[in-house]
Amino acid sequence: MADSPREIETLIGLMAKLPGLGPRSARRAVLHLIKKRDVQLTPLAEAMRAVAETARECLNCGNISTSDICDICSSEKRAIGEICVVEDVSDLWAMERSQVFRGRYHVLGGTLSALDNVGPEDLRIPQLRDRVAAEEVSEVILALNATIDGQTTAHYIADQLDGTGVRVTSLAQGVPIGGELDYLDDGTITAALKARKAF
Amino acid sequence: MADSPREIETLIGLMAKLPGLGPRSARRAVLHLIKKRDVQLTPLAEAMRAVAETARECLNCGNISTSDICDICSSEKRAIGEICVVEDVSDLWAMERSQVFRGRYHVLGGTLSALDNVGPEDLRIPQLRDRVAAEEVSEVILALNATIDGQTTAHYIADQLDGTGVRVTSLAQGVPIGGELDYLDDGTITAALKARKAF
Repeated sequence: MADSPREIETLIGLMAKLPGLGPRSARRAVLHLIKKRDVQLTPLAEAMRAVAETARECLNCGNISTSDICDICSSEKRAIGEICVVEDVSDLWAMERSQVFRGRYHVLGGTLSALDNVGPEDLRIPQLRDRVAAEEVSEVILALNATIDGQTTAHYIADQLDGTGVRVTSLAQGVPIGGELDYLDDGTITAALKARKAF
Repeated sequence: MADSPREIETLIGLMAKLPGLGPRSARRAVLHLIKKRDVQLTPLAEAMRAVAETARECLNCGNISTSDICDICSSEKRAIGEICVVEDVSDLWAMERSQVFRGRYHVLGGTLSALDNVGPEDLRIPQLRDRVAAEEVSEVILALNATIDGQTTAHYIADQLDGTGVRVTSLAQGVPIGGELDYLDDGTITAALKARKAF
């Protein structure tokens, strides 16, 4: 592609590094943007610059914010007694979309992983202990992914909070709404059976 | 998502409009970008701004360029006798990737379409006639997509160039390299059979 201008090649190269895009879809997206320069390309460049300049981590919970303390932590409408622990900001967003949790969050920034050499000090686990000690927290809800690493991390955190008097709970595991047994893995069916309840 | 900052919501909204991305993958891409602010987000914002400011259409062929005449049209290495007519810049890029055509291009900017109300004057067809009249063109290669609209447009252009003395050709149709007959549509097999050649 030596025949296409350097600026466009640079843009395609950067777009191709986005998750979900490859070289081919990056080219398509860039052509699309160039055709809609005024309504899409320029606003997108401006929106990226704005986010690059303002986005930061909430000092309290690790959520992405444009101020030192995020909107959720600083909201008076959110219960201060409940902290929901999630792996990543994307999980926090998923929880928020369900609009059912009205407490606050704590974003770990990943999971413990011996393979990837991620220890407790690499995550926001010490800060969680500090929050539980400093704030009036009555319940910590572990909303970690139902993966090996997620569950290992959940157990580690529960151990760490042992003796603080705070109630530690985790999301229920079972058949997802709309799920068909035939398409579920054995582990999910086992978990759902063990956690069966009166109908 | 009223709880996530406005700047980030704006960026996600704009990213979700890109072809190949939806709301979910846009959120993923934006989180990825925020985590890699210095190596990806800032350079991407800058690359978009640069393209928004410099990209324009080549006045001669309609290719995307950063100067009035694109690199291909102004290159002395490209044969001036052959013009390859393509629908869109993405098709030009596809031709260039094959590195076999060494002439120059003419980008129509679409196909004739009665349904979408696209007539010859909406495409770069008059300019093609002008180029054939003004430049020393010996052959016009119609590299339009093998769709109804593409082939209609090809026939129209061939009619328009009738009498100019220029040789009008089109890409061969047949079995794609690596293609299996069982997976090909009837039209392709019919075309390949009609255009069969001595082995």
